[in-house]
Amino acid sequence: MVVTIIGIGLIGGSLALSLKETGLAHHIIGVDRSPDNQRQAVALGLIDEPAQDLTEAVQRADLVVVAVPMDAMLTVLPLVLDAATDRQTVIDVGSTKALLLQAVEHHPQRSRFVAVHPMAGTEYSGPSAALPGLFRDKTLVICDAPRSAPDAVARVEAVFGRLAMRLVYMDATAHDLHTAYISHISHITSFALALTVLEKEKEDEQIFALASGGFESTVRLAKSSPDMWVPIFRQNRENVLDVLDEHIHQLQHLRELLHQENYPAVYQQIQQANLIKKILK
Amino acid sequence: MVVTIIGIGLIGGSLALSLKETGLAHHIIGVDRSPDNQRQAVALGLIDEPAQDLTEAVQRADLVVVAVPMDAMLTVLPLVLDAATDRQTVIDVGSTKALLLQAVEHHPQRSRFVAVHPMAGTEYSGPSAALPGLFRDKTLVICDAPRSAPDAVARVEAVFGRLAMRLVYMDATAHDLHTAYISHISHITSFALALTVLEKEKEDEQIFALASGGFESTVRLAKSSPDMWVPIFRQNRENVLDVLDEHIHQLQHLRELLHQENYPAVYQQIQQANLIKKILK
Repeated sequence: MVVTIIGIGLIGGSLALSLKETGLAHHIIGVDRSPDNQRQAVALGLIDEPAQDLTEAVQRADLVVVAVPMDAMLTVLPLVLDAATDRQTVIDVGSTKALLLQAVEHHPQRSRFVAVHPMAGTEYSGPSAALPGLFRDKTLVICDAPRSAPDAVARVEAVFGRLAMRLVYMDATAHDLHTAYISHISHITSFALALTVLEKEKEDEQIFALASGGFESTVRLAKSSPDMWVPIFRQNRENVLDVLDEHIHQLQHLRELLHQENYPAVYQQIQQANLIKKILK
Repeated sequence: MVVTIIGIGLIGGSLALSLKETGLAHHIIGVDRSPDNQRQAVALGLIDEPAQDLTEAVQRADLVVVAVPMDAMLTVLPLVLDAATDRQTVIDVGSTKALLLQAVEHHPQRSRFVAVHPMAGTEYSGPSAALPGLFRDKTLVICDAPRSAPDAVARVEAVFGRLAMRLVYMDATAHDLHTAYISHISHITSFALALTVLEKEKEDEQIFALASGGFESTVRLAKSSPDMWVPIFRQNRENVLDVLDEHIHQLQHLRELLHQENYPAVYQQIQQANLIKKILK
């Protein structure tokens, strides 16, 4: 299979590694608006061939992966579909879906497109952040599959099944709501936590001598790139605002209980929060 | 060295493993108000000998470790010091310090006590949560060291230096303020995040099909025990409230920027949060 990857960062690059490792791709063409990323992607062995001409790069491929930030996605995906023939399967790997699917809703090649979201990543970005095995045992959400051609869906299922991903089917609206809860809010919390601590650090540098595992765990997402996350928050703004309001409400409630020294109620809230055990391993 | 550990949970048990592994302890006596914990601690090889008589267990030891939750600590530590002679060094491993140090301020054996806080742990508790190597390369805070006998401080430095911990010296007030920022707020955020998502789950079970690494990372602390954390929040209430107010303020600010669709400002806030990179590895 010839694969063209547009946007060779953390996700595009990691996918390239997995497609090579499994033998699914025998040739990978890489397109990136940054010549530097393209050079790095070749040097790191993520892609076999850098390309500039989008139309040619699309038409030579069996599978086209668009892995650019969500704002660029809205303009790049229609261009890719303009170039696509019935031979190509085109996927995105984006974190929000409703706006993107609206943007290509009436595209004549809509059926060649399968909207997918691999629930995997790290707080790093760029080709050098690519990791082998990033997708193994993670979930792939396939959105609005009935709008895609059956052969295109079948190809996506075969490829990501081979990468050992769990396939989950969902419509775009449900996807955007759920990811607000499961992913987007975690990032906002982490950004806010970093800002809280950095604000304090102005007064006292010694504080970071104490940074421990629990802190690292909750704050690591705060290293994530604004180039990736601002477009996600923009495109999923209403869901993110709803979840954020609920989260602020929960924090205010805990704050009030602590302020009132109502420790039995704090205890009960923590016990309630512990129920998250049934979801996390 | 004979070591007596009072409270054989995650921290007490992990310390037992490290003291054995390094050969620092040739005999470990374990005291726990739970007979079940005591049995488990023997079965898991954490302790050599379970004991009931606190006075005897203290007096037979060179080093006494009090590793009980912070509310019990306020009553257990004075009892331990009542039993201590000039031969013993007594340490706590607690997460808050100001109230505890007040509680023993005028104790005749105050100088045998060294207040320490190993900045290490997991979200699990009990003897079965004990881990070898938990303390390696982590920070140990030693509080108000000038109030302890020089030989007791020297013993603590030797023991924890041998466990490959970084030693940091701080007064109790600074410790409690800094841990509010570096540890306690992370737990509150995580509890609130779990409550937010669990609230949502009532409506929709499918949401957890999507739980990914980022979610797990920010929410794992929400599995932490209320028996450990309520006493910490109680004893460090004022600092925790201050930090929590600042954190809620940061979240509300991000919320407002998103509500106003002021994306350049959201971008700038994330860039600011990214500065946490200079602190975390």
